Amino acid sequence: MSSQSTINFYVISDSVGGTASQLGQAAMTQFPDADIKVSAYPFIRGTDTLISILEKAVSDDAIVLHTLVNEELNKTAHLFCKEHGLVCFDPLSPIISELEKRSELAPIQKPGALHLLDETYFNRIKAIEFAVKFDDGRDPKGFLEADIVLLGISRTSKTPLSMFLANQNYKVANLPLVPEAHIPEQIFQVDSKKIVGLTSDRKALNSIRRERMLTYGMNPDTEYSKLDRIDRELAYAKKLYDKLNCLVINVSNKSIEETAAIIVNTLQIEHKQYEQQ
Amino acid sequence: MSSQSTINFYVISDSVGGTASQLGQAAMTQFPDADIKVSAYPFIRGTDTLISILEKAVSDDAIVLHTLVNEELNKTAHLFCKEHGLVCFDPLSPIISELEKRSELAPIQKPGALHLLDETYFNRIKAIEFAVKFDDGRDPKGFLEADIVLLGISRTSKTPLSMFLANQNYKVANLPLVPEAHIPEQIFQVDSKKIVGLTSDRKALNSIRRERMLTYGMNPDTEYSKLDRIDRELAYAKKLYDKLNCLVINVSNKSIEETAAIIVNTLQIEHKQYEQQ
Repeated sequence: MSSQSTINFYVISDSVGGTASQLGQAAMTQFPDADIKVSAYPFIRGTDTLISILEKAVSDDAIVLHTLVNEELNKTAHLFCKEHGLVCFDPLSPIISELEKRSELAPIQKPGALHLLDETYFNRIKAIEFAVKFDDGRDPKGFLEADIVLLGISRTSKTPLSMFLANQNYKVANLPLVPEAHIPEQIFQVDSKKIVGLTSDRKALNSIRRERMLTYGMNPDTEYSKLDRIDRELAYAKKLYDKLNCLVINVSNKSIEETAAIIVNTLQIEHKQYEQQ
Repeated sequence: MSSQSTINFYVISDSVGGTASQLGQAAMTQFPDADIKVSAYPFIRGTDTLISILEKAVSDDAIVLHTLVNEELNKTAHLFCKEHGLVCFDPLSPIISELEKRSELAPIQKPGALHLLDETYFNRIKAIEFAVKFDDGRDPKGFLEADIVLLGISRTSKTPLSMFLANQNYKVANLPLVPEAHIPEQIFQVDSKKIVGLTSDRKALNSIRRERMLTYGMNPDTEYSKLDRIDRELAYAKKLYDKLNCLVINVSNKSIEETAAIIVNTLQIEHKQYEQQ
């Protein structure tokens, strides 16, 4: 740990601030030992409010990162930061200028245009509701309607992965694999190109399952967490994946973001998050 | 619609590319009528692969947006783009340089450090599983464990909002309000500062519920979608919200991102997405 003082980081946006904060976060994670304090200021829509935040930034000697798409607010921020010697990042403006030049169109300057209540947005809401409805094999009808079907034994991240993909507009249904349970016939009717078999390492599963038992206040060394039980489940899953001839991903040491990106790239399903209106 | 030709937009990352694509998307949504084709290249970890993509970008006359945190890859991209006259955006590097200067620390140059499998990450996975488990009032025990409790009549976006907040590490439980159903006693034991009452406009609900009935292949004008039924539900919810003295948000014409940002800012709960390790 370094001995430097706290670095103040102001993230300002005229909308929810998702883009700005993700960018700030990505930069910050390159310095796990730095002492960085982030202050988020979303929904900034007035010049006076903006200036009072920037004045506070001056007294905090803060780094300013903003994604103001309104021209007046953007100019105000630039002028103020220049006059007061504030370090200011505005990652959106140069990209918008380039698109303006190439398209010969004017930007709509609508804050939060990313979250317009348009068809793509409503499809995303539907995808999230779909994923919750058809989580955990609750209703086998979901498998036939889904864009992606996830299969996996307990603790292979089926649920969070389903929700993450749903947030990218994919309709996802998942089925937990248990050697003793029946596989719904719909699984064999689904195009195998839509199916992903999740697997993991036996040691990783053992440790995660032990931890889960401890969370429940139970003995960690139950049948559920035993290595021979896990081996039997993994073998059962492998046999099914071979039969289905589906994509198989080992999720140990992968984040859900990584697994999701592999699925979307491998299945070559449409990149729904990029749909243009 | 303008008559210009397609604008090619290459989004390159050495990790999943979430930051770069969100930034590109935010810029693109300012030009709803432009014809923009996005090509995503995540997980780029080798110089040869990178150069072959950049060569393709030259032949496509593409705009390049990258978030390469590895120094060698980053330099390669800069040099190549300069030599070949490619328009190239690298929004992360200047922020990383500034943090490097202020912290007197070196960046770890680890691609995808944003998604390290650390405690924050596992807490997010737990929050998502929590939200699915305690969606739709499935188990009243969830209300006492939750960071945020969402209440609302049918079609006030409880489920997608729960999932969105869960993705920001909040443990969320929600309860659908139905005048005929019993309110679990746990709701009255929860600190009202953690409760959000969702409401909407009668006309908006009427139209959404009619649409939902049509999706189910049913007559749109059922009891469920009738205005007097909706009025009765809204009055019932309002009475409960008054009794609980909780935050009330009208979600009509708001995206889940906006509603979530209002909740996080108003409840003044810790900004969990900014947790530093």
